[in-house]
Amino acid sequence: MNKQENILNIATKRGFFYPSAEYYGSKAGFWTYGHLGKLMKTKFENLWRCIFLGLNDNYYEIEGSSILPKKVFESSGHLKNFNDPLTECEKCHFRFRADQLVEDELKKDVDGLDEKALTKIIRDNKLKCPRCGSNLMDVKWFNMMFELRLGATGEDIGYLSPETAQNPYLSFKRQFMAQREKLPMGLAMVGKAFRNEISPRQGFFRLREFTQAELQIFFDPDEIDKADRWNEIKNYKLRLFLAKDRKQNKLTEIICDDANKKLKLPKLYVYHLARMQKFYLENLEIPKEKFRFRELAENERAFYNKIHFDGEINMETLGGFKEVCGCHYRTDHDLLGHSKGSGEKLEILYDNKRFVPHVLELSFGVDRNLWALLDLFYNEEKERTSLRLPYVVAPIETAVFPLVNKDKLPEKAEQIYSELRQNHVKVFYDSSGSIGRMYRRMDEIGCLYMVTIDHQTLKDNTVTVRNRNDMKQIRVKTKDLLETLRKLFKKEIEFKKAGKLI
Amino acid sequence: MNKQENILNIATKRGFFYPSAEYYGSKAGFWTYGHLGKLMKTKFENLWRCIFLGLNDNYYEIEGSSILPKKVFESSGHLKNFNDPLTECEKCHFRFRADQLVEDELKKDVDGLDEKALTKIIRDNKLKCPRCGSNLMDVKWFNMMFELRLGATGEDIGYLSPETAQNPYLSFKRQFMAQREKLPMGLAMVGKAFRNEISPRQGFFRLREFTQAELQIFFDPDEIDKADRWNEIKNYKLRLFLAKDRKQNKLTEIICDDANKKLKLPKLYVYHLARMQKFYLENLEIPKEKFRFRELAENERAFYNKIHFDGEINMETLGGFKEVCGCHYRTDHDLLGHSKGSGEKLEILYDNKRFVPHVLELSFGVDRNLWALLDLFYNEEKERTSLRLPYVVAPIETAVFPLVNKDKLPEKAEQIYSELRQNHVKVFYDSSGSIGRMYRRMDEIGCLYMVTIDHQTLKDNTVTVRNRNDMKQIRVKTKDLLETLRKLFKKEIEFKKAGKLI
Repeated sequence: MNKQENILNIATKRGFFYPSAEYYGSKAGFWTYGHLGKLMKTKFENLWRCIFLGLNDNYYEIEGSSILPKKVFESSGHLKNFNDPLTECEKCHFRFRADQLVEDELKKDVDGLDEKALTKIIRDNKLKCPRCGSNLMDVKWFNMMFELRLGATGEDIGYLSPETAQNPYLSFKRQFMAQREKLPMGLAMVGKAFRNEISPRQGFFRLREFTQAELQIFFDPDEIDKADRWNEIKNYKLRLFLAKDRKQNKLTEIICDDANKKLKLPKLYVYHLARMQKFYLENLEIPKEKFRFRELAENERAFYNKIHFDGEINMETLGGFKEVCGCHYRTDHDLLGHSKGSGEKLEILYDNKRFVPHVLELSFGVDRNLWALLDLFYNEEKERTSLRLPYVVAPIETAVFPLVNKDKLPEKAEQIYSELRQNHVKVFYDSSGSIGRMYRRMDEIGCLYMVTIDHQTLKDNTVTVRNRNDMKQIRVKTKDLLETLRKLFKKEIEFKKAGKLI
Repeated sequence: MNKQENILNIATKRGFFYPSAEYYGSKAGFWTYGHLGKLMKTKFENLWRCIFLGLNDNYYEIEGSSILPKKVFESSGHLKNFNDPLTECEKCHFRFRADQLVEDELKKDVDGLDEKALTKIIRDNKLKCPRCGSNLMDVKWFNMMFELRLGATGEDIGYLSPETAQNPYLSFKRQFMAQREKLPMGLAMVGKAFRNEISPRQGFFRLREFTQAELQIFFDPDEIDKADRWNEIKNYKLRLFLAKDRKQNKLTEIICDDANKKLKLPKLYVYHLARMQKFYLENLEIPKEKFRFRELAENERAFYNKIHFDGEINMETLGGFKEVCGCHYRTDHDLLGHSKGSGEKLEILYDNKRFVPHVLELSFGVDRNLWALLDLFYNEEKERTSLRLPYVVAPIETAVFPLVNKDKLPEKAEQIYSELRQNHVKVFYDSSGSIGRMYRRMDEIGCLYMVTIDHQTLKDNTVTVRNRNDMKQIRVKTKDLLETLRKLFKKEIEFKKAGKLI
């Protein structure tokens, strides 16, 4: 088995995630988080909130509807533009995503080509239906939103939101008043988005129903070259893969101050880019060489995105750098669009000026970030497989085992387990197998420290603590266990100094 | 304005919730949580998780798909049975929910009547279209699920899940293995559910897109009269509104032991009922006379629910007791249904027996619980309106104000504010108005304690803390503020003893 299969195998078997509705033969692109996956996802989302809502007192989370009326997507442009190119077999009528088909058959990058260009490539290269060999029809656009009918008359049409972003734009007016008319104002949403992909591939990475964590920052365009806490990041080094350097495959490492002065990127933009990179490198402990920001060239980005960098992580399972987040300067495109489409006045009076605020969007795909973490921290050794997840996303942090299932060891172990659990440590208790097997199982789900209660525990009130990463063991006093674990989680002490090495 | 309008007014103005997509004229039944509502909702959901997942080491949360394939709902019975009665005007073709129309026109309870009985009532009473006065058509069933088409061919039909419950049933097999084959096993979901209500009314109480918090407990039916921690609740007094006492409007107060012995309710059921009541009375501080469990009679409950009590709260805004949660003994109905529908074997080998586990469902409507809290804790006095929310759901816990916006008071206030914020207190800072107005504003959103920094603060390092509920004030040392607030939140000290009363 390759690495992707190995990870999927652990994920489905241990309860990270598995296809939804498996009894019925699942539909591609729909997955369910099991108990471990949900713990991990919740930790990721809460960390995200803590970091990004913590940037400014005026950044808050809201929760909008997944179902929104048709007019919203007329104004946003999704009805017209949110399309994938589709081609259909003349004979078997199977439908294919035209760009994928061309890429598969000709090993050629066709990103950004329109339906006529794709049709021409199919004709010029005499591409046929991969299933039955018949001719393919002309490429046309297929809208990727799920349509539904509201109410009993069926006349009202709604769509499932293909991104969380529209809700903050629709809430702008209410929230600006409720948040006492201050800018910048941030409105985040962590929620589901839905896209009717023609044929989702890449397993857990491209989904039809998925979770986004997005922050929309509304600001005064005259203030775009200001950032309150600029000093905290001005010397921080960004890892940029600039569009002009794409061919030479050259990475630019540049401090924020220079990104602002030499690359002419505005401070508000650079500031948030730095915070995003710090989130990956410092909080999620991603090795820096695995991370970069890829700049999108003008013909690659949406016309309303004036500046667009995607955060990318290099994943072995997906064969290279793949997008996990993005930072988009969307100008006044969204609010203007809704203002025109609805007739609602979204201009504000602020700082003695009248204007429509501009938007900076920080966008993260939660599920694909989790996949990236599994890819990066999956580790195979001769005798074991471990997920070396950092504490901030590990679903189970500690496990407690009695060495044998007798001699009052289970009672003592349960007591220690209960105390940890009451103190909100994510802890697992098991007394049903051999210690060796329990260690392997815990390594596989990323549990950081394993506590074993043995006969010595009954004598001197010490326990063995095993470190997932190097399998080293220390002896710690029972009464110090909780505090020791807390320090280990926060990396306030080194493992080998946290107790007596054995 | 009446109380309902007053609450809605605060909710929309202050950022608790407001109709979704307002710029375009909102569709009934779709609401957005603003920044305060989202904080309150998150607190409620996390409290729910803490209480109900805390009941057993083997209760976990999962997260399934909102979109599920058609076959799931064939097996679950929703395609056939999840209907509302619909009647249509012959002339203007407006559609009405037939039971609501009859209830409105005749003030008569028609719960549980079928389409023929409703048609007969319409005919017998010569009911006409309330809009144009024309004749109404025969009543027919209208399926309340939102249908959508998956993939590019449009042949695959899916539905938005009308309840979170199906996902845990669909995950049963995977989770039973991943959770090491133990019973009872609990699978919770806190997530969106979607119902295409014909004409949703009651404002925020009946929604088309809403959040449920549900726990499905899979157990061995031979063990239904056992509960691990029975001793903790056996003398706890339940408030039951039994079906047989409905006419006399008689409430039965009965301890759990007697509910088990005299009313023949199994211990597993009674145990969870007690935990639900404790959640409302102890954690959410709901006055006990406002809460009861209403038993559903055999003709009122779904045929597969062998025991069914709904938790109800008496709400002034909705004119009486309304359902906020339910406890349903669903037998093996769900797993058997999916087993038959899919051919997947869901029988397990456990305790040397082969059987399909039974299910006990704890179901909560999150949005309507939040509405109930606003209803119960809304309070009007001569000179102010306050939301007397308990700490566990208050979106803002503390506010910090400088008495005047000069003399270095704002600097001192900001410093105190930052310290509280860093220590995860939900705190709001404001220096932009008069103290009186700021107090009123904070009372209205349920903020518990307001801290004012004045000239005396600069002299002796004390601050004024004002209590929302009685407007009394104490003087507290700045260095003790965080600890004092923490004790007040946890009710470890009385307000008037927490500092020097002024």
